[in-house]
Amino acid sequence: MALLVVITGYQATPWVSKLQAFEPKLDIRVWPEVGDPDEIDFALTWRHPMGEFKKYRNLKCIASMGAGVEHILCDPDLPHGVPITRIVEPSMPQSMIEYVVMVVLNYCRHYDLYRKQQIEQQWLLKIPILARNVGIGIMGLGQLGGDAAEKLSHLGFQVAGWNRTPKIINGVKTFSGDDQLNEFLAHTRILICLLPLTPGTKDILNRDLFDKLQPGAYVINVARGEHLVEQDLLYALETGQLSGACLDVFRTEPLPKDHPFWRHPKIVVTPHISSLTIPAAVVPQIIENYHRALSGNPLLNEVDIRRGY
Amino acid sequence: MALLVVITGYQATPWVSKLQAFEPKLDIRVWPEVGDPDEIDFALTWRHPMGEFKKYRNLKCIASMGAGVEHILCDPDLPHGVPITRIVEPSMPQSMIEYVVMVVLNYCRHYDLYRKQQIEQQWLLKIPILARNVGIGIMGLGQLGGDAAEKLSHLGFQVAGWNRTPKIINGVKTFSGDDQLNEFLAHTRILICLLPLTPGTKDILNRDLFDKLQPGAYVINVARGEHLVEQDLLYALETGQLSGACLDVFRTEPLPKDHPFWRHPKIVVTPHISSLTIPAAVVPQIIENYHRALSGNPLLNEVDIRRGY
Repeated sequence: MALLVVITGYQATPWVSKLQAFEPKLDIRVWPEVGDPDEIDFALTWRHPMGEFKKYRNLKCIASMGAGVEHILCDPDLPHGVPITRIVEPSMPQSMIEYVVMVVLNYCRHYDLYRKQQIEQQWLLKIPILARNVGIGIMGLGQLGGDAAEKLSHLGFQVAGWNRTPKIINGVKTFSGDDQLNEFLAHTRILICLLPLTPGTKDILNRDLFDKLQPGAYVINVARGEHLVEQDLLYALETGQLSGACLDVFRTEPLPKDHPFWRHPKIVVTPHISSLTIPAAVVPQIIENYHRALSGNPLLNEVDIRRGY
Repeated sequence: MALLVVITGYQATPWVSKLQAFEPKLDIRVWPEVGDPDEIDFALTWRHPMGEFKKYRNLKCIASMGAGVEHILCDPDLPHGVPITRIVEPSMPQSMIEYVVMVVLNYCRHYDLYRKQQIEQQWLLKIPILARNVGIGIMGLGQLGGDAAEKLSHLGFQVAGWNRTPKIINGVKTFSGDDQLNEFLAHTRILICLLPLTPGTKDILNRDLFDKLQPGAYVINVARGEHLVEQDLLYALETGQLSGACLDVFRTEPLPKDHPFWRHPKIVVTPHISSLTIPAAVVPQIIENYHRALSGNPLLNEVDIRRGY
């Protein structure tokens, strides 16, 4: 009986140490040092190599390390009948909102500029963009988008939101549907993408959309890499239609070493940390599911594979 | 009749252009290009050279560019009987609070680390410090400190506050007086200094105080440079008792080029921008006072020189 950690692009160490601390007798294997594949009952995973799970004939559960399971479901060689679970953790939306507020304030207060100036011992001011003078536009007003809108509004920003279907949020001007998108964009100096990824939102952050934002707008993508047309972002930064962007998600993750985003002076790249799962916070629910899987009890947060979440 | 702008350490240009835009016929002189000193009726100033104002025998008002006037009152050669005014502007507390929230989030989310990693195309995560797990301690619960406490608490941080006299703030644990200072410090992982500068608070950020904070604490000073004993900060960073500091105010401003803070890897230096006056927002009250000074009408926001504000 063993729990296998299969992770690429991130370190396994924090997970292994928290799992061990929580249940010291647990037999933990870390891919690719798997040992006997027949001993593996449970896989805890983030971005596994395609086809990996069909090697484990006694596998009783595939547990995502995060809220999303696309990285599991996209595997054409998933073993049939093995249930998949995801993480449901109240700190994740909070973590995302903190990230978004941080990025917005860093932009308005020219934080990166001051860090550069410090290296050169330069004491030079740049007038900040005051919250009350900047229009923030949030695309996607689900739980996350709605909370982010409320927090930014409380800090004094002019916040508008756009959603596929109409929503009402206190203190936030809301727009909905295709016919109100242009009006929403025209108000927006800082655009925050928090949309779900669907056929209708894929590639939505494109040249046509950027052109409808206020000139010199700033774009923050914390949803999915597939929302953004990468070449269109580079073009809009070159023409000045956009003044910068902060990206936490990418079409390929980890972002390849030779990708132009890494070295672009107007792009902030972070390694998918906006709603990072904190191992200490979620290890208890993972261990609980491990025991449930072994004993055949119903799993927590099992994914409906047809719906995709 | 002329208005003289006397400023050191910052650029005069944004002020001159906003003054001109607001009142195109105004005769504006920019120190040191003063022309005939007898033509100067009104001085708009930040950190003037000591003794400068006694050269202008027709001076009717000395107007600070900011909320503070210590930079004027510390001049032993001020001309007698010339009234002094300061800026009262509602956006300044807001600006300070945004700065403080930005710095707290950058610390908790390791923003500077990710900027360094981007230069090296490194995709590596560091577990963030979640708001709910970090104790923030605010010293000074006046208007600014109280507002900052409320905003940080609304974002989910555990906020405590300390004040010379007792204060009550919703959702914030408050301490007061010397006998509750140690208990307040013991709760504090991120310390924010928003105290007024008085003989009792000068040098309060010292080795003894740092030792009473949680190990690896972070210190943010946005009040006055004189609150901080600089050598004690360097010592506490060296021993690891403090993990870092963000300083916006200094004993000497601009911070001298050879000062060790500039190159210290654990210190963020910003050039006194936390509650920066926005010229566009305050030029109307300055021009109003210029006309009042010329016509002998009562000035707005005149300082009581004995009280010092």
